[in-house]
Amino acid sequence: MLSLRPPSIAARCAAYRALAPGCRRRLATAPQLRKVVFSGIQPTGVPHLGNYLGALRQWVRLQEEAAPDTTLLFSIVDLHAITIKQHPADLQQWRREMLASLLAVGLDPARCVVFAQSSVRQHAELMWILSCGASMGYLGRMTQWKSKLQLPDSALPLASSKDQLKLGLFSYPVLQAADILLYNTTHVPVGEDQAQHLEFTRELATGFNHLYGPLLTVPETQLSAAKRVMSLAEPTKKMSKSDPKPKSRILITDSRETIHSKLRSALTDSIEGVSYDREARPGVSNLVDLIHHFDQAGAASPEELAQDLKGLSMRALKEKAADSVDKSIKPIRERYEELMSGDQKKLISHAESGARKAEAMAESTMQRIRNAMGIGW
Amino acid sequence: MLSLRPPSIAARCAAYRALAPGCRRRLATAPQLRKVVFSGIQPTGVPHLGNYLGALRQWVRLQEEAAPDTTLLFSIVDLHAITIKQHPADLQQWRREMLASLLAVGLDPARCVVFAQSSVRQHAELMWILSCGASMGYLGRMTQWKSKLQLPDSALPLASSKDQLKLGLFSYPVLQAADILLYNTTHVPVGEDQAQHLEFTRELATGFNHLYGPLLTVPETQLSAAKRVMSLAEPTKKMSKSDPKPKSRILITDSRETIHSKLRSALTDSIEGVSYDREARPGVSNLVDLIHHFDQAGAASPEELAQDLKGLSMRALKEKAADSVDKSIKPIRERYEELMSGDQKKLISHAESGARKAEAMAESTMQRIRNAMGIGW
Repeated sequence: MLSLRPPSIAARCAAYRALAPGCRRRLATAPQLRKVVFSGIQPTGVPHLGNYLGALRQWVRLQEEAAPDTTLLFSIVDLHAITIKQHPADLQQWRREMLASLLAVGLDPARCVVFAQSSVRQHAELMWILSCGASMGYLGRMTQWKSKLQLPDSALPLASSKDQLKLGLFSYPVLQAADILLYNTTHVPVGEDQAQHLEFTRELATGFNHLYGPLLTVPETQLSAAKRVMSLAEPTKKMSKSDPKPKSRILITDSRETIHSKLRSALTDSIEGVSYDREARPGVSNLVDLIHHFDQAGAASPEELAQDLKGLSMRALKEKAADSVDKSIKPIRERYEELMSGDQKKLISHAESGARKAEAMAESTMQRIRNAMGIGW
Repeated sequence: MLSLRPPSIAARCAAYRALAPGCRRRLATAPQLRKVVFSGIQPTGVPHLGNYLGALRQWVRLQEEAAPDTTLLFSIVDLHAITIKQHPADLQQWRREMLASLLAVGLDPARCVVFAQSSVRQHAELMWILSCGASMGYLGRMTQWKSKLQLPDSALPLASSKDQLKLGLFSYPVLQAADILLYNTTHVPVGEDQAQHLEFTRELATGFNHLYGPLLTVPETQLSAAKRVMSLAEPTKKMSKSDPKPKSRILITDSRETIHSKLRSALTDSIEGVSYDREARPGVSNLVDLIHHFDQAGAASPEELAQDLKGLSMRALKEKAADSVDKSIKPIRERYEELMSGDQKKLISHAESGARKAEAMAESTMQRIRNAMGIGW
């Protein structure tokens, strides 16, 4: 991102407009040298293994591998959570559990900025500003609000669904864009389901930059190979918090006994021996995957691992999976328990210091934006 | 407004839910004893006589007549202004001019809270929260965004207009609701064109209170008899900033010479003498109205005043109107010039202190809201 200290709006706008259009385009998308990574997670309480392997462990790896001058921000996106109905006491508890989990899995609050979205007012402020340039037509063609209202992707907003549809849910992608653009994010690690929203973020940023000068960094998508962890009860479905059977998922804070008990009752099949075939043997393959994901030695592929384990009985496979999971998440569980014990003062102080750091970064962006738009004094 | 200090969310929600529905309704609309008045004005630069007589002078009277414990807030709503395209340098200048005008007409920053909406982050924050409960269908039936896109009131959002329509303009009434609800406003003095938006605000507040307890004050509309001031060039149309002819309007900062010159060229008619008939003699009636509005002695009605003036020539009537306007706005002009002279430090310091006062009030509301929703720590 070019560092432009605002002299006067008029001078800056004039200088920008005086550039040839091609040059303006280059400026507007000029690469930033320092990397800024932003990602968010909903406050759904203690994560299960699907959340952990799909996102959180990846974040910890990003932290470990990042260059020293890379900024890493991880946000608990509670303002997104309220686009659907939430019970306040649950939401408050789940935010704490998620925060404790993020720290427990290994995000270091001295290295990353870990914070709750609602603690930084500038998210909503930038959301409003971006919404003044966001086309209703484009938003109506996005798919996520349709899936949350359980409408088919192709559905036009019908009169009946429109009364049910709330503005917050419909505008969700604009808040998401604000989350990202507020920190001059260069890289957003997301799953494929979010690629459409990120493209929208890029369009909003480009549109803003064409009007006001190159203030917003146009971020790049960093698609992550999704590690799919399947339900233990119904291994053709993803492991999910919303599954009514608690035995279908393992939480990253489950005790050794609970992990063993849940895995013992995992649905497999009656074919003898272990082999890897996600179609024909989803339950067994899911267990092999779990061992593979947590395998410290690192077998090259789940297929190879299955080959190594082929002589095991179902019971032995489940024991092995349980041991493997337990061994890996034991330190997480212990750190989590420490953070959640007593009055949680330390936890709250981490949240507050994360919010302060995020806010300082966000406010610096917003000051430039307000000045460029003529809404500073 | 009931003062409920948040003990624990769960306890508070449970207590509220345990009430009989009828009782909940009473709580949710329980009248507040202390009056809070909120009104906003767009940053359109120096107001003309239409703005002054239609709104600003009314605000000053509210200030003069208010009980000592009444809170008065007047906001320059620049976050609303950006729902349509603005030139940044103009917008910045117009905000300053509007602020100086509000103080110059007599709003006392020691008695009222005068501030720019964009200086208080909580407006956008509450807007987001309210948007999670605002129905898209209801918003689509509001008329203002249609008029700004120059669509007929009855128009359904067509595909073509939807790409042109921006989310900010469509969501405008929700931000307006946030403006009002943020300060526990009891009274909103508005023109009739805003009555629909205020009804929407009341619905949002009621809906919120039913979910989270009686936190938001449901405001009352205070419809003001609009004082219509007509264009000097085309007296069948309202005096307007957007009229391309500067002679069609008198600004509250115009010099004595300018006022006289503009009124000398005001369109009247060739009927002899003065009489009051807005249909048949719009130009003459507009001048009589002006004298009547500014008449310190206070004739009972414009009709009576016209009777008193019936012997005057057009030229003498115009002179009289100019004298009357000039005499009334001279102190405003002088105060304005003082505020806008030099480095405008005093003006900015008024803006900053107004913003701090507004923010403290807004933050106190938001803390209660965040706690009730489960997004506080």
